[in-house]
Amino acid sequence: MERGLLFNQIRQNGDRYLKLVETLISQPSVSATGEGLRDCARLVEGLLEDVGLRVTSYEVGGGGPIILGELNVEAHATLMFYNHYDVQPADPLDRWSSNPFQPTIKDGKIFGRGAADNKGNIAARIAAIDTLLSLLGELPVNIKFLVEGGEEIGSPGLERFVNEHSDILFADGCIWEYGHVSRRGPPVINLGVKGMLYVEVEATGVEYHSSLGGIVENPGWRLVEFLKMVHGVDGRVLVDGFYEDVEEVSDELLEMLDVVRLSDVTPEGISTGPGNVDEKKLLKRLLLEPACNICGLSAGYTGEGAKTSIPSRAVAKLDFRLVPKQDPDKIFQRIESLAAGAGVRIRKIHGYPAARTQPDSYLVHLVADTAREAYGSEPVVLPSGAASGPMYLFTDVLGMPCVSTGVGYAGSNVHGPNENIRIEDFYKGIAHIALIMRYFHSYLR
Amino acid sequence: MERGLLFNQIRQNGDRYLKLVETLISQPSVSATGEGLRDCARLVEGLLEDVGLRVTSYEVGGGGPIILGELNVEAHATLMFYNHYDVQPADPLDRWSSNPFQPTIKDGKIFGRGAADNKGNIAARIAAIDTLLSLLGELPVNIKFLVEGGEEIGSPGLERFVNEHSDILFADGCIWEYGHVSRRGPPVINLGVKGMLYVEVEATGVEYHSSLGGIVENPGWRLVEFLKMVHGVDGRVLVDGFYEDVEEVSDELLEMLDVVRLSDVTPEGISTGPGNVDEKKLLKRLLLEPACNICGLSAGYTGEGAKTSIPSRAVAKLDFRLVPKQDPDKIFQRIESLAAGAGVRIRKIHGYPAARTQPDSYLVHLVADTAREAYGSEPVVLPSGAASGPMYLFTDVLGMPCVSTGVGYAGSNVHGPNENIRIEDFYKGIAHIALIMRYFHSYLR
Repeated sequence: MERGLLFNQIRQNGDRYLKLVETLISQPSVSATGEGLRDCARLVEGLLEDVGLRVTSYEVGGGGPIILGELNVEAHATLMFYNHYDVQPADPLDRWSSNPFQPTIKDGKIFGRGAADNKGNIAARIAAIDTLLSLLGELPVNIKFLVEGGEEIGSPGLERFVNEHSDILFADGCIWEYGHVSRRGPPVINLGVKGMLYVEVEATGVEYHSSLGGIVENPGWRLVEFLKMVHGVDGRVLVDGFYEDVEEVSDELLEMLDVVRLSDVTPEGISTGPGNVDEKKLLKRLLLEPACNICGLSAGYTGEGAKTSIPSRAVAKLDFRLVPKQDPDKIFQRIESLAAGAGVRIRKIHGYPAARTQPDSYLVHLVADTAREAYGSEPVVLPSGAASGPMYLFTDVLGMPCVSTGVGYAGSNVHGPNENIRIEDFYKGIAHIALIMRYFHSYLR
Repeated sequence: MERGLLFNQIRQNGDRYLKLVETLISQPSVSATGEGLRDCARLVEGLLEDVGLRVTSYEVGGGGPIILGELNVEAHATLMFYNHYDVQPADPLDRWSSNPFQPTIKDGKIFGRGAADNKGNIAARIAAIDTLLSLLGELPVNIKFLVEGGEEIGSPGLERFVNEHSDILFADGCIWEYGHVSRRGPPVINLGVKGMLYVEVEATGVEYHSSLGGIVENPGWRLVEFLKMVHGVDGRVLVDGFYEDVEEVSDELLEMLDVVRLSDVTPEGISTGPGNVDEKKLLKRLLLEPACNICGLSAGYTGEGAKTSIPSRAVAKLDFRLVPKQDPDKIFQRIESLAAGAGVRIRKIHGYPAARTQPDSYLVHLVADTAREAYGSEPVVLPSGAASGPMYLFTDVLGMPCVSTGVGYAGSNVHGPNENIRIEDFYKGIAHIALIMRYFHSYLR
């Protein structure tokens, strides 16, 4: 397809496509609080129907309904898009320069909660269908859209939904929800996500005056002891068996890192890590190795000044970022044993395994080749992103390759204040998705 | 003095003396918030004047004014009382059965914030003066009252006040603020308090999405590493030089523990400690060894469910309970060095050294002998209590022996909800103080 023609078509309809982003941002859809979720689901349904998809909505509990949109053109190939219409809470509101739910265009960017994550991508994919329909009269590939409403709270209900509806979810490949243009220019394409095990650890006791601290158990110290049994100074996870199923990173994956810069995948301000290791080691650690984070700690008195009490409760929230083959349930059991021995309780908040598509998949070639065409530069292809998501349901349960690409950029400030995308990236993203749909059948064998 | 006569006099005026406690409880005086402090100071001044003391009030900053009351009968001996009129905050209010600032009598007890700590004791000491004046016509000893208004927030200003006014603070001995009747019956007399070093430890960083956790520093882990460098699994403090100035406990002090039971000095529910050691070892640990407590922990997200962020800040509040010869400033410097090496910041909230009066002091014999008479049972004499307080200003700066005795009991729930004293203990406490004043001159050599 002629590149000039494609971009011309997109720019001619640019304002209409931008309007899609604005409409979606204007409708709050905060899964953490439930605000506007159902209204946003209906809005997405309408937008999908407007470009010809047949839409069904499924209540799955715990988030907004899952929307399944289908456009069957009786092609031999079917492409799935995975997206989510829910967003993170917008607070702290005082750090936004504009109302997060009132889309604002400034300096060639569109600001608002969900601009990058994930409403801009929903809009770009809908716009790409519209563009192709205008240029070709009909789509050259069958389309399925799965748009969920609980991604930001761990995708509750999605696993069950996928297991129960695998028959209607068949596709030859899936374009994952997000992607961004790196700080030095090229688009970044992810072939995978890390897995996740999120746990809450709790040590309890009796709140005594801390003068008794010499002889009564302090849940705070018990928690610290446990945390030290989980995580070593070098960042290694010390839980017995944690690395047992981790496979050595193949030379093929390692070589992919040769063309990646740390600045392609991190926000500004990050240069070296705990061990002051070199860039490639950091990239390997970030993208291909598991990690464990303290996300929260609480115990006793935390106000100004002093209170002298043994806390009755000490809690830590930990996330474990997992790599392929690591089983979150098995690891949870190991941590549970360790916790029992250490006198602390542990509760699983959520978890799922990692997922990764092989670099030699037809879909990777398709997405990379079309990115080269849409963006006019060589894409950076990552074996995996650092982030997590329920991609295994598509790769492992439904058995389709998944590749991630999208309209964000390094300054999108996803989950933060002043979330935004650049309008030029949005247009290129539409072109990229249009080209993926256009050439899908010729890459699929 | 005839015991029957003394108790008869106290019981005849019992309701009037109880009214003193009720009046003091009715006036809130929360030093943490400042609520009612000045009104309470004026109330105490009036009550001291009512029994003939000449009162001066000093603004020292940081708490309520320090009240100095004097009654000079030109005796050869002068007895000091140290008390405080400020109280802990009453919350959580929903755990009180009655209004904390509305004194309530039930089942022979009087309930209200400050009943035991320390308003009941102020009242008992004033009542004891009133009793002796009625029985003897005049006091046999000169009296000084120092009543401060900032004890519950670390006695800010008291050290400076004592240093600047040592000339007018002369006395031959001091009866310390509190004391209680043990669970098995006998009154407990403390010859000392532990020292205190209260610090806040802070690790800071940047709040990143926790997918970056493999390569960016997590202040939570840095804090945990530091805490492990401070405190060992066996409860020992690992800070270099922490025990350097701690002297071996003398046989004389150890022998004092032979007649003490754990239940004399602890609330219900405490039987064994971290090492499952025997009772005497626990008593030694509790009363004569230093300790370190986590009083508070906070970092990142602590609400329901999950948030996947590296916290930008992780904070711990620690108290170190010190024994004689340990210098809080020197120890703070050691911890500061350790903190600098570990990449965390440390701030001193407050601190003071321990204090202890020798068991062979005339004041100990006086307080023990009169306790025997007032309570009709053999008192338990402790070389030190487990708690802390600014006693060193009296023992070390002003150079007078200090002994602690008072009207609480094991169920007083000091600092907690439903704080109370038993009315019978209050009457016995009045008798005890009266006897101490009565025989002071004959013990002092």
